[in-house]
Amino acid sequence: MAQSTDAEQLEKIYDTALTQGKAYGWLNYLSNQIGGRLSGSVQAQQAVDYTKSQLDSLGLDKVWLQPVMVPKWVRGTPEFAYFETSPGVTTNVPICALGGSVPTPPKGIKANIIEVNGIEQLATLGKDKIQGNIVFFNRPMDPTKINTFDAYSNCVDQRYAGAMEASKFGALGVIVRSMNLRSDDFPHTGSMGYGDQPVADRIPAAAISTNAADLLSTSLKLNSEIKFYFKQNCKEFSDVESYNVIGEIKGSSHPEEIIVVGGHLDSWDLGDGSHYDGAGCVQSMEVLNLLRKTGYRPKRTLRVVLFMNEENGLRGGNKYAEVATSKNENHVFALESDSGGFTPRGFTFDCTDKQFEKVVGWKDLFEPYMVHYFKKGGSGADIGPLKKEGLVMAGLRPDSQRYFDYHHAENDTFEQINKRELELGAATMASLVYLVDKYGF
Amino acid sequence: MAQSTDAEQLEKIYDTALTQGKAYGWLNYLSNQIGGRLSGSVQAQQAVDYTKSQLDSLGLDKVWLQPVMVPKWVRGTPEFAYFETSPGVTTNVPICALGGSVPTPPKGIKANIIEVNGIEQLATLGKDKIQGNIVFFNRPMDPTKINTFDAYSNCVDQRYAGAMEASKFGALGVIVRSMNLRSDDFPHTGSMGYGDQPVADRIPAAAISTNAADLLSTSLKLNSEIKFYFKQNCKEFSDVESYNVIGEIKGSSHPEEIIVVGGHLDSWDLGDGSHYDGAGCVQSMEVLNLLRKTGYRPKRTLRVVLFMNEENGLRGGNKYAEVATSKNENHVFALESDSGGFTPRGFTFDCTDKQFEKVVGWKDLFEPYMVHYFKKGGSGADIGPLKKEGLVMAGLRPDSQRYFDYHHAENDTFEQINKRELELGAATMASLVYLVDKYGF
Repeated sequence: MAQSTDAEQLEKIYDTALTQGKAYGWLNYLSNQIGGRLSGSVQAQQAVDYTKSQLDSLGLDKVWLQPVMVPKWVRGTPEFAYFETSPGVTTNVPICALGGSVPTPPKGIKANIIEVNGIEQLATLGKDKIQGNIVFFNRPMDPTKINTFDAYSNCVDQRYAGAMEASKFGALGVIVRSMNLRSDDFPHTGSMGYGDQPVADRIPAAAISTNAADLLSTSLKLNSEIKFYFKQNCKEFSDVESYNVIGEIKGSSHPEEIIVVGGHLDSWDLGDGSHYDGAGCVQSMEVLNLLRKTGYRPKRTLRVVLFMNEENGLRGGNKYAEVATSKNENHVFALESDSGGFTPRGFTFDCTDKQFEKVVGWKDLFEPYMVHYFKKGGSGADIGPLKKEGLVMAGLRPDSQRYFDYHHAENDTFEQINKRELELGAATMASLVYLVDKYGF
Repeated sequence: MAQSTDAEQLEKIYDTALTQGKAYGWLNYLSNQIGGRLSGSVQAQQAVDYTKSQLDSLGLDKVWLQPVMVPKWVRGTPEFAYFETSPGVTTNVPICALGGSVPTPPKGIKANIIEVNGIEQLATLGKDKIQGNIVFFNRPMDPTKINTFDAYSNCVDQRYAGAMEASKFGALGVIVRSMNLRSDDFPHTGSMGYGDQPVADRIPAAAISTNAADLLSTSLKLNSEIKFYFKQNCKEFSDVESYNVIGEIKGSSHPEEIIVVGGHLDSWDLGDGSHYDGAGCVQSMEVLNLLRKTGYRPKRTLRVVLFMNEENGLRGGNKYAEVATSKNENHVFALESDSGGFTPRGFTFDCTDKQFEKVVGWKDLFEPYMVHYFKKGGSGADIGPLKKEGLVMAGLRPDSQRYFDYHHAENDTFEQINKRELELGAATMASLVYLVDKYGF
């Protein structure tokens, strides 16, 4: 049988995704039957079992679990916070512990609160002003950035390193404005770290909703003596065993050349992890399903990897790369989807100019699908550890406008997923994988 | 002062929209303080008053109301429907009267129901099979169309003309599958017509939700003798006076050349009309606001027109064109936003090849804003009647994937609007208007 043309193959892929796709049903199960899948949780294990069973049912050549030790951080009872403008006059505010934070003392922390515009301002204020107080990091995301990730990367240091830095000036705890461009009532969690700080020096960190951050900031302008109270009893347990879930189709003519497509199976615990990164997982699974359903027999080995523990450790990504290196595997292309299940706009590529030139040569094939954005840039956290000369890495780039509305928050739920947008993302990934497999680099 | 470069001016426009925009606040008022604005309703009049007062506050050169007689169709009490698989065994289903439909008799209609795949199938079945029954138009929208409007245009004849055509074969009423690509429980209304049919021959028409349409279809496969019951008491009253709301900034050097930007102020009555077309109205108002705020003084006359009665009559669009012709006004460019407040992808242009060439020359300026889609094509219903040689007409093209999730349904509400997406649409329109004003055609 003559090989159908590339345009025809892409059309088959998109049509199949939009009419017989499995991604939305898979995500419905992950989100609504399992829910938030924090590393080390029962739900994370249920997600491992479920996705493995689904990959098993696709008739791939091989499906397996790759063991990896992961951190187990548990939120505990819901956090509680208020600010007090005068004795007994309090306003409750929505907060959530940042992932990896230590707890407050059992009775909570109550202290004056100092607003800063970022980590840099700590040194300006100095120990005199900060010691014994809570620090409130309130630099907002910049709404003029068209790509919302640019606004995120300019703020997220407050969340990641705010506690570590503020503790050096004697702060008792930190409250961080949620990484969110909207004004709403959802606190957004996310990872934070203490570096190599001794455990005794670590102070608790929580995110506050954007609405409450604005209210607190305004109140502080009227009365700088406001006291802030918060309580959280999150806890870090010993590492536990978990798994990357892997499935593959052996290549027909170059089985030793491996193409990886993946997302991360763990999520935060507040929502059900539909966009972050349930969407990326089911899209990655769907890539193999779509290529099979459309009758395409890959020349190279296609592997889907559902990485464990991207959110608070990247242990899965590191483990996968470690095993690949130890087995001397030859990865030629890696594609990640971890930017939400929104309408796909294109890809960013981490590769040489020559490789990029080849990719750009395929761009016109995507035009009927409104996929137009082919740029050099980052790929994804989970595939990052695979980086080596020759390997082309890419990230799916969906429309980013709504990304931070749901990111790491209670409202990251299945209702916020549009079936077509999710399916178009999967088809876009499958189309790129098809072209890479067919033509190589 | 030296004129800033075009790239700088566009940046100013986008920055201003994203930081000081008025569109979202205006839409909040229209949606949450006023609500659905069906032509001839109290809410439509409130919307006229509110938007006029807001345009008045912008310091334009002139704001006025243009009287126009509009139809007044009223839904009445909520519709009710069920199907009966055997005597007394009934399943209620969500329906809504189509706009312009006649009512059922006060006691409703109960009859056998015949499923068809479209108007063409009526002749195949013939009067024998249809007479005395209800016709169920159930051709679904094609999910493989990437642009969802292509799927809509291939189905909407069932909604618009289904009743008129089915009545010729003796049908008692029609039930039409909602124009919706999702499986959900919302019936979607929309306009329908009877042409020049005598009033006595007109039969009632209602939309049924996609979930209920699927359920009914499956049930009919098991039992073709199913009876369907529906009741609606909608009513057409005499025409009433309403208004197009118009504001303008006089051109500094070519005041006789008019650029129009607009959306339609009326909406259906089921939701609050946030996407259809509240978004287009506030974006059009925002175009003038953004150009003023960024200090741009237009050479040509810029006019915002909020058209009345697009949904069920187009009286506002027709009246505006009629007055323009009678005054011998010289319109050089007309831009409409009536495709929802989603992330802007580009524009379609109804113009000559030479004019289109000029427009495409500006495309690169939009690249930083992810606006990439410049195609020849339709513009918009309201500006349609202005069409004449030389006039360039354009439509804003937002991402279309979620369009039919909300279109003409109860869930077209303010919660479904993302502030940034709305603002990016307004900035994209203002940028094009700026370029047209500066360079002409």
